[in-house]
Amino acid sequence: MIKTGAQYRDDMERMKPSIYMMGEKVENYQKDPRFRSSFNLVALNHDICFDEKYRDLAVCHEPLVDEPVRRFTHKLQTTQEDSLKKAQLTRQVCRHHICGWCMSNSLCILWTLTHDIDRKYGTEYHQRFKEFAGFLMKNDYDCFWAMMNPKGDRSLKLDQQKQGSPGVKIVRKDKKGIVVRGAKVSNSYATCSLYTFAVPCTALTEGEKDYAVAFAVPSDEKGVHFIVRPAPNRDSSAPDHDMENPIGSEIGIVEGTVIFDDVFVPWERVFMCGEWDMAQQLPLLFSNIHRQSKCACLAGHSDLVCGVASLVADVNGTSRIGHIREKITQLMIEAEVAYGCSLGAAMEGSLHPGGIFIPSTAITNAGVTYIKKLTGEQIQLLHDVSGGIICTMPVEADYRNPVTKKWMDAYLFGSSKYTTEERLRALYLAQEIASSKFTGYFIGWGVNAAGSPAACDIFVRSHYDLKASVSVAREWAGIKEKKRPSQKANSER
Amino acid sequence: MIKTGAQYRDDMERMKPSIYMMGEKVENYQKDPRFRSSFNLVALNHDICFDEKYRDLAVCHEPLVDEPVRRFTHKLQTTQEDSLKKAQLTRQVCRHHICGWCMSNSLCILWTLTHDIDRKYGTEYHQRFKEFAGFLMKNDYDCFWAMMNPKGDRSLKLDQQKQGSPGVKIVRKDKKGIVVRGAKVSNSYATCSLYTFAVPCTALTEGEKDYAVAFAVPSDEKGVHFIVRPAPNRDSSAPDHDMENPIGSEIGIVEGTVIFDDVFVPWERVFMCGEWDMAQQLPLLFSNIHRQSKCACLAGHSDLVCGVASLVADVNGTSRIGHIREKITQLMIEAEVAYGCSLGAAMEGSLHPGGIFIPSTAITNAGVTYIKKLTGEQIQLLHDVSGGIICTMPVEADYRNPVTKKWMDAYLFGSSKYTTEERLRALYLAQEIASSKFTGYFIGWGVNAAGSPAACDIFVRSHYDLKASVSVAREWAGIKEKKRPSQKANSER
Amino acid sequence: MIKTGAQYRDDMERMKPSIYMMGEKVENYQKDPRFRSSFNLVALNHDICFDEKYRDLAVCHEPLVDEPVRRFTHKLQTTQEDSLKKAQLTRQVCRHHICGWCMSNSLCILWTLTHDIDRKYGTEYHQRFKEFAGFLMKNDYDCFWAMMNPKGDRSLKLDQQKQGSPGVKIVRKDKKGIVVRGAKVSNSYATCSLYTFAVPCTALTEGEKDYAVAFAVPSDEKGVHFIVRPAPNRDSSAPDHDMENPIGSEIGIVEGTVIFDDVFVPWERVFMCGEWDMAQQLPLLFSNIHRQSKCACLAGHSDLVCGVASLVADVNGTSRIGHIREKITQLMIEAEVAYGCSLGAAMEGSLHPGGIFIPSTAITNAGVTYIKKLTGEQIQLLHDVSGGIICTMPVEADYRNPVTKKWMDAYLFGSSKYTTEERLRALYLAQEIASSKFTGYFIGWGVNAAGSPAACDIFVRSHYDLKASVSVAREWAGIKEKKRPSQKANSER
Amino acid sequence: MIKTGAQYRDDMERMKPSIYMMGEKVENYQKDPRFRSSFNLVALNHDICFDEKYRDLAVCHEPLVDEPVRRFTHKLQTTQEDSLKKAQLTRQVCRHHICGWCMSNSLCILWTLTHDIDRKYGTEYHQRFKEFAGFLMKNDYDCFWAMMNPKGDRSLKLDQQKQGSPGVKIVRKDKKGIVVRGAKVSNSYATCSLYTFAVPCTALTEGEKDYAVAFAVPSDEKGVHFIVRPAPNRDSSAPDHDMENPIGSEIGIVEGTVIFDDVFVPWERVFMCGEWDMAQQLPLLFSNIHRQSKCACLAGHSDLVCGVASLVADVNGTSRIGHIREKITQLMIEAEVAYGCSLGAAMEGSLHPGGIFIPSTAITNAGVTYIKKLTGEQIQLLHDVSGGIICTMPVEADYRNPVTKKWMDAYLFGSSKYTTEERLRALYLAQEIASSKFTGYFIGWGVNAAGSPAACDIFVRSHYDLKASVSVAREWAGIKEKKRPSQKANSER
Repeated sequence: MIKTGAQYRDDMERMKPSIYMMGEKVENYQKDPRFRSSFNLVALNHDICFDEKYRDLAVCHEPLVDEPVRRFTHKLQTTQEDSLKKAQLTRQVCRHHICGWCMSNSLCILWTLTHDIDRKYGTEYHQRFKEFAGFLMKNDYDCFWAMMNPKGDRSLKLDQQKQGSPGVKIVRKDKKGIVVRGAKVSNSYATCSLYTFAVPCTALTEGEKDYAVAFAVPSDEKGVHFIVRPAPNRDSSAPDHDMENPIGSEIGIVEGTVIFDDVFVPWERVFMCGEWDMAQQLPLLFSNIHRQSKCACLAGHSDLVCGVASLVADVNGTSRIGHIREKITQLMIEAEVAYGCSLGAAMEGSLHPGGIFIPSTAITNAGVTYIKKLTGEQIQLLHDVSGGIICTMPVEADYRNPVTKKWMDAYLFGSSKYTTEERLRALYLAQEIASSKFTGYFIGWGVNAAGSPAACDIFVRSHYDLKASVSVAREWAGIKEKKRPSQKANSER
Repeated sequence: MIKTGAQYRDDMERMKPSIYMMGEKVENYQKDPRFRSSFNLVALNHDICFDEKYRDLAVCHEPLVDEPVRRFTHKLQTTQEDSLKKAQLTRQVCRHHICGWCMSNSLCILWTLTHDIDRKYGTEYHQRFKEFAGFLMKNDYDCFWAMMNPKGDRSLKLDQQKQGSPGVKIVRKDKKGIVVRGAKVSNSYATCSLYTFAVPCTALTEGEKDYAVAFAVPSDEKGVHFIVRPAPNRDSSAPDHDMENPIGSEIGIVEGTVIFDDVFVPWERVFMCGEWDMAQQLPLLFSNIHRQSKCACLAGHSDLVCGVASLVADVNGTSRIGHIREKITQLMIEAEVAYGCSLGAAMEGSLHPGGIFIPSTAITNAGVTYIKKLTGEQIQLLHDVSGGIICTMPVEADYRNPVTKKWMDAYLFGSSKYTTEERLRALYLAQEIASSKFTGYFIGWGVNAAGSPAACDIFVRSHYDLKASVSVAREWAGIKEKKRPSQKANSER
Repeated sequence: MIKTGAQYRDDMERMKPSIYMMGEKVENYQKDPRFRSSFNLVALNHDICFDEKYRDLAVCHEPLVDEPVRRFTHKLQTTQEDSLKKAQLTRQVCRHHICGWCMSNSLCILWTLTHDIDRKYGTEYHQRFKEFAGFLMKNDYDCFWAMMNPKGDRSLKLDQQKQGSPGVKIVRKDKKGIVVRGAKVSNSYATCSLYTFAVPCTALTEGEKDYAVAFAVPSDEKGVHFIVRPAPNRDSSAPDHDMENPIGSEIGIVEGTVIFDDVFVPWERVFMCGEWDMAQQLPLLFSNIHRQSKCACLAGHSDLVCGVASLVADVNGTSRIGHIREKITQLMIEAEVAYGCSLGAAMEGSLHPGGIFIPSTAITNAGVTYIKKLTGEQIQLLHDVSGGIICTMPVEADYRNPVTKKWMDAYLFGSSKYTTEERLRALYLAQEIASSKFTGYFIGWGVNAAGSPAACDIFVRSHYDLKASVSVAREWAGIKEKKRPSQKANSER
Repeated sequence: MIKTGAQYRDDMERMKPSIYMMGEKVENYQKDPRFRSSFNLVALNHDICFDEKYRDLAVCHEPLVDEPVRRFTHKLQTTQEDSLKKAQLTRQVCRHHICGWCMSNSLCILWTLTHDIDRKYGTEYHQRFKEFAGFLMKNDYDCFWAMMNPKGDRSLKLDQQKQGSPGVKIVRKDKKGIVVRGAKVSNSYATCSLYTFAVPCTALTEGEKDYAVAFAVPSDEKGVHFIVRPAPNRDSSAPDHDMENPIGSEIGIVEGTVIFDDVFVPWERVFMCGEWDMAQQLPLLFSNIHRQSKCACLAGHSDLVCGVASLVADVNGTSRIGHIREKITQLMIEAEVAYGCSLGAAMEGSLHPGGIFIPSTAITNAGVTYIKKLTGEQIQLLHDVSGGIICTMPVEADYRNPVTKKWMDAYLFGSSKYTTEERLRALYLAQEIASSKFTGYFIGWGVNAAGSPAACDIFVRSHYDLKASVSVAREWAGIKEKKRPSQKANSER
């Protein structure tokens, strides 16, 4: 049963997680204004299912439970069409709401991982996972995804670190379940869901087998603690913000660190436990399934920057100037290229034996690394199109003070198609995106969310069909293939 | 009936076109060595249909004639699948043979154009075109595409030029047909086919209505003259070229100017005649149907450069050096992004009422302009990876002279995985692509074939859904849409 | 007499300007914490003159007053050496303190402008200006520079605007002086000095002659009002900031709008009054004198980003990874190229008849537009090198809470060369630059301060010696120069 | 005594070197047309000294011989002014004649190297070199520079190679001199001078000490053999070339491999012999002295491309179109930035104890790597501005055939400011630069001459003052410097 945003909020009411924010323990976080924008965004991702503008893409039937589910959250993507519709929905939503929280990708990853572990080791993770996934779907529960380890000293393995133990590891096992300890960082939406998944984030060695663990726990389980930072929403030092932070006042994403302080997990929610050689599957599945979403997501962000740039040019009366038009066109090109790659990746996808449709790793990662590397430049273009005024103009509160409003109306007008207030509104929006606390998050979601550009480059290198291209070169050059097992250029990091 | 390369050559034997090359009239061009590489390439595009490596993609059934046809040449693309398979075949072939001569795109364009003219004007062009297309298909005849006008003085319309009359225009009409006069430039494969299509290349005004003409003529029709330049194949000043020009020695594309010196065309081969307001359809249809091919084509060219760079790095023993690997990865990314866009454009395509499947104009042009702008840099990267030696080393003839061969063997070896000759072969191949007469054509096919980057930018600008992006910006900014008919930023050049 | 920072603060004590900030009138701004960082920065620019690390460059002798002056503030640049030393000092200071407030550039601009007006019109502005400049020098008074007009509707001239009157104009003249009305925007350091300069910012037409006015007034003159926004310093919503905003806690730049509400200016401080045809000198002199500084300034900013990226890579233990090293090298290259151009511009400079040394307009603007267009990408690189953690990690206050500090120490350590606190300090610094309110200002100072990239491009186009390059092309092509007055490609916008 | 081009040719008359070209031994190369363009270019570099347009920069007084010398060839650069004038002359000449053959750089390098070896080892190389340099100066002899080793297997040292012995080594020593054996590759102007220098090209290990050898020999010394390839001048397959290859018909640079087949060198021309630890000086001195020239040289090449693009836009009538103008402006910016860095490098230079003025390594290499990476894109821009026609139009011979000339005149005209022939001349010039055999050389001179971009990057990395930038970061972050000898990030490759 798909729940509305209001029903999601009701579900969250009963949670009593251990949360720390800005140096203090948070009580009654459901009412704390610093969480408001994040709850709003999750609720919005429920509500789009009841909004005719999105419904056709946002809602779909899921055979596992034989019910309609939210595509972003619970769809097991088993066909090319699933993959395409996800991309379409992602661009559309991210253009508007920044993020669609596409956690169905996690279900697909764990579905495939548990399938493969069972096939190799005769374990029963897959059935367990099916049941847990069905449970989430039937209750329309969100579930956030804790994957990223703190890295510690990167020249050392997890089990060789000297200053501590980054990552989450199994410290005990018994008949009922396991006990885990450690931390996960860079967790978007931490505290915003009833359940928390944790999974490995890199390939592991045998010595690191205790870190080969995947599981789910209620977010208020004993021993689970969150250190969360507020989304870049209201800047509380300013008295009024209807115009100045329109996006952040409404929606946002808390970012958190999760501590597992000897947390017990019963076997029915353990999905990997010691199969260290299978851990490499996780970054691989992440690299195609989740980055295909990221590719469409950043197309949407490019659309947003493009739309804002175009609106600002219009209020400034500069939209016909050649270089302004070229810069806006550049943003269009970037949006379309990223989106094209997200769709194209679906076209070259293939079905995994476990049933999940896997988009092309090479196209996905090429598209994502292309657009990730442009996120800073896009902000620069928005400054360029908007002018220095987005860093220097009087703030909204000055426009609400009649003394200064009079001057602002007299001097800060722009194109005669707009009122001064309309011009200011457009400039404040540009300011929020390009010159506010929001800016850094916006760039960060581009550059590092779903993996760094360098990580994407590595997956292009390892999945591009270099052999085919070199064969053509050898054929033209008249150089025969070597018998020797050379040509490993593309298999190394 | 699909014909082999040999059968294609047989067909061409009977032609007696009027050809000028390098200052002289050419007799018996079928035997002239300067045409050899071009005939080879066309023949190859026949022969791949009999090669198991390509056949599944290269041959398909065409309902119009209820026969198998060559996909590149005669397939009317009516489904998304057609569009995708064309893209796949294009990358694969262009990676290897530079060009697949995808003239089925022209058939699709004329199919759609004639359909639309008839619908508006009640004319009968479409039926005529169907018959002519069926005739080409049944005989497996190639047909080259003369579209580009000489531009004359670009600040003046075609009918206002003072120094002459660039473009092809109707000079007479009667019951039997029309007489046309003028020139078309930048015609790849001119002289390599039995028939020649000519069509407008830009939107026209009423005063230019005589230039609104589309037709086909036999390539040796009276009054048709070709001024052709040889493909960059053998450099005749050098004695021996097995190693030095491996690509150009085999395949190439003659480029020609076609003169229509009062040529009569009977009505059955006239497909547009004066409908000046419909001429704008041509660049538009070209921009999506043909550039989707170009996008995949340049992915293939990127593959070729990548394969050569990788082979050269291997023979030089530098393939594990960080910056070399990054540069080769960059080429991979570029190939995958362009290919992703070609596939993605198919995904967002739609069916034209005339029956042709039209890929997304915005994605196609974004992908194409992206990769076109990188063609020079790709050549720079190949110089960078290969080293200065590709411009300075002894030529092949020196390697055939025992005196100098001895020194070359002693000093010019590379990685121990390869013989000196193998290293030289790889370097000569890199030289052909990056530092020979071939280089300029290779860049030219990238930058200007199928339209300049600026032309592609314009189509992104006019087809990107700017309204949607600006709506989002307006909504966040709290600025209502205006009633006034403003917001035309995207409809102008 | 060069004053210390403390003496500067003493001077400011007596000011009683009319200031509005965040919706309210500000009383006793000398004590208001929101002005603290800006006063600090100005004071620092005094104190470097007493710091042996900077003194040799920062202090110099000024013949006009035959006294030592602060180079940044009061040096009339009359030799190539002046121009070079200014560039050296600028990079060094901006690498560290973001901004050196190089207002001596304004003195040079007004020196030259008044000289030229007098020569043409026989006026006496130059002598007046000399006296006023000497007065500033002798008292070591800072003086901020109000140049930028609000643009209004950009398709209309200043005197044709319909919604109001952007820009500052003369409304009355009499024997004693003039009365001015209007506004200037984007004024860095507004309110931080005893005096305020105002000058035109674009070429003017005869109809706009009332806007051709340059003058100085005490910053607390009757009728002068400031609407100022605080520098991005403390984010008051957070309890503690020693680690999180190290730069903004110390230094900053208030940005303000200045309203001239019928302000009287006596003739001795009027430096231009109606000579509309001379207004074009201002953007031109600004484009070389001030942008040469900007070029070195942004080299310094690139150094800062490079230093932070390198430090973060070191605390993360990633400084030997190939792609990290390449990215840091890229930042080095950008810093050196911008700095090289700033120095190179001095080398190709020339002496204006009025005595000021003018650096090369073409080199200056080429260097500046190069580095301006990279400011967004530099922030992206810092995200890339630092990792997602700079947007997601616990805040400083969490590190001061013993409960969460324990976990942070246990899990958030990095390279064993550093303590966890040291690592956090480095990451917080990266966060301030790349993901805080500071970020937008930092990009803004890059993109738009001292003129937009497009403005710089125009000055390259108008000052590059295109005639020489085209002559070479003509000579090789064998095309004679035309007599006709063509070839104006570079003289238009 | 400075010699004219004619006197240079007279000097060359008596040479009888052993030359192989295109598979054959060349007799009487002084008359061989394939050497003509190279002799022309060297002669031109003599003749500019008698041309008032260049003379002031091209001729200067050299204290060593107390005579005027050619700056490019024989000036020992001992002051900042020398360094600046060299840069000015280089841009001016390379804009026009592609190359000024700045071999004075070699004299400066060997001057410094011999000085430093003597100081360390008490040897007498410096005095010998002084005498030889004086001899060259007094006779105005050119002397080409053989530096680049064939690289062999790059994972192995020179003394560990298995397939042969790349590089030049000492095989015998006696009282009279030494005997050397080996090869040098990528030697521009090989065979065009009376003498040949050979020097190491990389740092060496003790095991490679036999390769630590620098010397000069007459170019027709016994045992010296050249394998030379013709400059990309006339394409002999075409009948007439006044219009089509204007540059290559006049000037060019033969590129050669030099074989030292047990060549005897008397001690008076030996300048290094076994001091392996000093070999690293060579790439270092090369990196600043010679690359400062390269930076100005590529500014000149950018000017040439810019001038041709501008001329072509004018003949095409497109010079006012926005995107065309932006592309030409981009070329201007690139030229000015590279030139600015060349001048700026001189500004930050310093005097070596041996007396040579050394420009800034960091600025030089930053400027060079910037412009080198753009050489491919510049060619792409020229294609873009020119249009596809430069790869497809009728050739010059067709314009000389009255039949085809008539059609070309009728259809291939452009802007009415030019005749059709003038338009063709401009297009043929663009073709030579962007789409002919010349193109590859032109890119190659950009990318690899004077070192690859990667080599330049390494020198930026090793000479940028990273310590200063990191200190600033540490200070802001509040992290003290470590005592430990860490922070070596910039000292490794």
